[in-house]
Amino acid sequence: MNPPEKPAETPPTSLFGGAPDAVTIYEVGPRDGLQNETTVLSVERKVEMIEDLVDAGIRRIEMTSFVNPRWIPALADHMEVAARVRRKPGVDYSALVPNMRGLDSATRAGMKEVAVFMAASQSHNQKNINKSTEAALATYREVVGEARSRGMRVRGYVSCVYGCPYEGAVPAQQVIDVSAALLEMGVFEVSLGDTIGVGTPRQVEHVFRSLLAAGLTMEQLAVHFHDTRGTALANITVALQFGVRTIDSAVGGLGGCPYAPGASGNVATEDVVYMLSGMGIDTGVDIDKLVGVSTRLSGLLARELPSKYLKAHMGHCARLGRSV
Amino acid sequence: MNPPEKPAETPPTSLFGGAPDAVTIYEVGPRDGLQNETTVLSVERKVEMIEDLVDAGIRRIEMTSFVNPRWIPALADHMEVAARVRRKPGVDYSALVPNMRGLDSATRAGMKEVAVFMAASQSHNQKNINKSTEAALATYREVVGEARSRGMRVRGYVSCVYGCPYEGAVPAQQVIDVSAALLEMGVFEVSLGDTIGVGTPRQVEHVFRSLLAAGLTMEQLAVHFHDTRGTALANITVALQFGVRTIDSAVGGLGGCPYAPGASGNVATEDVVYMLSGMGIDTGVDIDKLVGVSTRLSGLLARELPSKYLKAHMGHCARLGRSV
Repeated sequence: MNPPEKPAETPPTSLFGGAPDAVTIYEVGPRDGLQNETTVLSVERKVEMIEDLVDAGIRRIEMTSFVNPRWIPALADHMEVAARVRRKPGVDYSALVPNMRGLDSATRAGMKEVAVFMAASQSHNQKNINKSTEAALATYREVVGEARSRGMRVRGYVSCVYGCPYEGAVPAQQVIDVSAALLEMGVFEVSLGDTIGVGTPRQVEHVFRSLLAAGLTMEQLAVHFHDTRGTALANITVALQFGVRTIDSAVGGLGGCPYAPGASGNVATEDVVYMLSGMGIDTGVDIDKLVGVSTRLSGLLARELPSKYLKAHMGHCARLGRSV
Repeated sequence: MNPPEKPAETPPTSLFGGAPDAVTIYEVGPRDGLQNETTVLSVERKVEMIEDLVDAGIRRIEMTSFVNPRWIPALADHMEVAARVRRKPGVDYSALVPNMRGLDSATRAGMKEVAVFMAASQSHNQKNINKSTEAALATYREVVGEARSRGMRVRGYVSCVYGCPYEGAVPAQQVIDVSAALLEMGVFEVSLGDTIGVGTPRQVEHVFRSLLAAGLTMEQLAVHFHDTRGTALANITVALQFGVRTIDSAVGGLGGCPYAPGASGNVATEDVVYMLSGMGIDTGVDIDKLVGVSTRLSGLLARELPSKYLKAHMGHCARLGRSV
């Protein structure tokens, strides 16, 4: 009836036609979250947190990191935590391993899934894991092979996908190279990390378009956004348009930046679950139980957690009537 | 070379092909922000805030609201604020007017642009402006006609587009009807408000698709998201895909929910400017100057403001090296 006057205003065809009906949340709060909190929880509280998250419907969870305690003192209790958590059938429990020693500990703790981690940028690898990109890949080739021969499955993390604190911009080709190398050595999934929370939606489009053009598939990819500058849900929105099926997040938005008390860390599980639910995408997570977990954690850590959904929920903001 | 194995994984065609090269920020901090803050700033501080925002590159700004002081005591000084702000050429200064009396005050204060406001839902109109939707439209028909005959241009707000605190879901048809009626009576632009911050990206897609199908154009539409549940930038990302050119935001994320001290109000101007800048979309706003304004406001209001960019900036989070 009304012919469009301007072709630029033709509405885009369905934006979310490629989005999945269900997404798996990969909960990283006990690891990526707690490792960046100043308050260290006891083993009991950590075990309770993990079991409560599973009770809220989380089906994949990263419990701890089998790294040298001198590196990350907050996770020095990795053996006890990993050993004590009651496993629930159908749930995948994972933990980071930086090397063969970590893998041996994870094996003794009964882990069936582990994760290796490195950056897409040389200098971050050098400063964070004290290895060149090539040396890290060589180590992991051994670790991943050994883990698989022990019957474990292995996740790979690629960090600094959207920017490196030392190098700035990171070319997509480096993300492709490291991701492809990890997949080639046998990891079943690569989680693409925006470690310092600098990414924006067009970058996410560029990264996914580049990875798919290089032959990777959406089944092999997960997203791991930090919400440092508030862009995590926007970035996830783009990843959903590409069909991402696995999203990393931390209950309450735990973690944050050690230099900024109020700053956000990992994107909050509540915020992701709220948005996906509003989009008709199932996560299997009960958001009220989740809020129960973060409310308890907020008390234990003696700080307000960054999740915006959590704050709105606490304040019953839906009741706000006045204002435009 | 590698034929796609699954059609579902064909990457979407350019997501942001319809996005503009430049976006105008419509700054609502002095009005929608301050009206929801418990600390009331003096006229001098408000004038300074407005002038500083303009100095940071803001080209459209809502200074105050010409409503009965009993309604919104924090903006009771509307005459003084509107009269005292030094106007800069090329900048559009606006203010809310609820009725003819407000329009008369705005006229005396020298306003060249005013805004009328109502909801897409009956019960919100009844409770917020004490009129039925039909009665509100009748009032505004008079106000808008008179404002235009006085040489002013008039913006229209439609609130509760994504949900109403009293009715819940709001059918897109009600948004269309109210928006079309406002445009028909002579407003030059309709700002679509997510008043209680409940919207998610697929809803935004649905609303825009419905409005465009009804014959409205993107030039007539602005977006006004509250970040109560963290979805504002995700929603803006979708609006950009539809080609939105005007985005409402408040410096620092001022405003918030009166029931929740830490909760977010309007999406923060810093967060919008950061994301758009990363997407290559120009706003003309100097983010460092903007952070200067919100840092001063944070001191004056004696509270941490919700903008995530602001918190990251204060903590120099880009320097964070460790962690995945």
